[in-house]
Amino acid sequence: MACKPINVLITGANRGLGLEMVKQIMKTQRPLSMVFACCRDPDGEKAQGLRELAVDNIIKIIRMDVADPKSIKEAASQVGSLLGQSGLNLIINNAAVALPSTFSATTPEQMHDCYRTNAVGPTCIIQEFLPYLRTAAKDSEMPGMSIRKAAVVNISTFVSSIGLAKDTYKKFPCLPYRASKAALNMMVVCASVDLQQDEILCMLLHPGWVRTDMGGPNGEIDPQESVQSMLEVMSSMTEKHHGKLLDYKGKSMPW
Amino acid sequence: MACKPINVLITGANRGLGLEMVKQIMKTQRPLSMVFACCRDPDGEKAQGLRELAVDNIIKIIRMDVADPKSIKEAASQVGSLLGQSGLNLIINNAAVALPSTFSATTPEQMHDCYRTNAVGPTCIIQEFLPYLRTAAKDSEMPGMSIRKAAVVNISTFVSSIGLAKDTYKKFPCLPYRASKAALNMMVVCASVDLQQDEILCMLLHPGWVRTDMGGPNGEIDPQESVQSMLEVMSSMTEKHHGKLLDYKGKSMPW
Repeated sequence: MACKPINVLITGANRGLGLEMVKQIMKTQRPLSMVFACCRDPDGEKAQGLRELAVDNIIKIIRMDVADPKSIKEAASQVGSLLGQSGLNLIINNAAVALPSTFSATTPEQMHDCYRTNAVGPTCIIQEFLPYLRTAAKDSEMPGMSIRKAAVVNISTFVSSIGLAKDTYKKFPCLPYRASKAALNMMVVCASVDLQQDEILCMLLHPGWVRTDMGGPNGEIDPQESVQSMLEVMSSMTEKHHGKLLDYKGKSMPW
Repeated sequence: MACKPINVLITGANRGLGLEMVKQIMKTQRPLSMVFACCRDPDGEKAQGLRELAVDNIIKIIRMDVADPKSIKEAASQVGSLLGQSGLNLIINNAAVALPSTFSATTPEQMHDCYRTNAVGPTCIIQEFLPYLRTAAKDSEMPGMSIRKAAVVNISTFVSSIGLAKDTYKKFPCLPYRASKAALNMMVVCASVDLQQDEILCMLLHPGWVRTDMGGPNGEIDPQESVQSMLEVMSSMTEKHHGKLLDYKGKSMPW
């Protein structure tokens, strides 16, 4: 049976891991129908690379500020129009902000800023796009769960692991980021319970410590390697991975 | 060697577990110097029970709105004046808000409201009162860690456990509460790393499912039993419990 073309949505798609994901998905995840590449400012300087990619008509650049629920709603409406009767097969919740604060230096504003983008934003995105994911799941003839049926992959991080925090905190303090990502992990596990009956896969991926604007120059791997490995993991995921946190090599991580 | 009198601070002290803690601490944790019983509205109707207890001059009612960093600063300044040269031995971060939302019904406002009180508030409290905790730790002649030396006990919950969420979510959805408490757990583990050198104990306690305004009428235990058991656990805690999440019977819980 030939694969059906899929529709994919990626947030934070204008740079770093997000941009690399768009690039590699275009190469390795065909057949594709549409790739919705979301970013805050499609016309800005920081979206130049994405605009260059989008000469391929499969890529649709969508304005979405993950920190703003109203903007998420508008993006969902726009994507819905483009989808028509089709479903959305895969959401990659990739957009995030990080702040390097230690416990002592952390401010309430930093905590809320990280929470808004990293925990509240992905919650709103799953809520708003859920009808399209459901359509994709219903239209699929595949049993079980997979990213070519209907899935939400949420990019988390190894510093979201509370169990590892005693060992990782001194090297990576970033408390506002950590707290928001631990909350994200909780949200995704809860969402996975609700999405189970619709057979929509919902899980978390740690991309590795990557040399991006966020990961800094000392990262252990480059975005190409991280994304290649994550896409391999995603492609092989089934209902066994529902509600789990995996690293970019597919290894399960502790909460 | 006779025990030195200690200074204790409790947030959300006007009702539920907080009020019960003030009562039982007055009975079982002597010798006491001062018990700072913090609540949002010391003059309000909901603080009547606390005002009645405070005929004992050991209890000092302090105005503190945990959702407002400025109010936490003001409370710290007031407590500092009352402490003089003395340290603060024990903080019980008890104040919290819960909302019963499922994943689908959760709003951004609910998420931020829970986060403000349950995660950001306790962060600010530890930051603002840290100088007094340090004084207590320095003044103590006890080795290691204990609540009679210097400690922050953070009231968390079994629904903060991401590892248990698949099993507990359907019965206790409350996503905004869960996400904020998972973030609290992360914050406390990070803070515990920073507080280690000062020998300030910092950990989390799950009070059980208690019949309070928050826990509802179907809770498994009453506030008396919960608080009695938690105080026994607290009294026996050492540096072994630093950065851990324990239930009210002293059993370690998964993140």
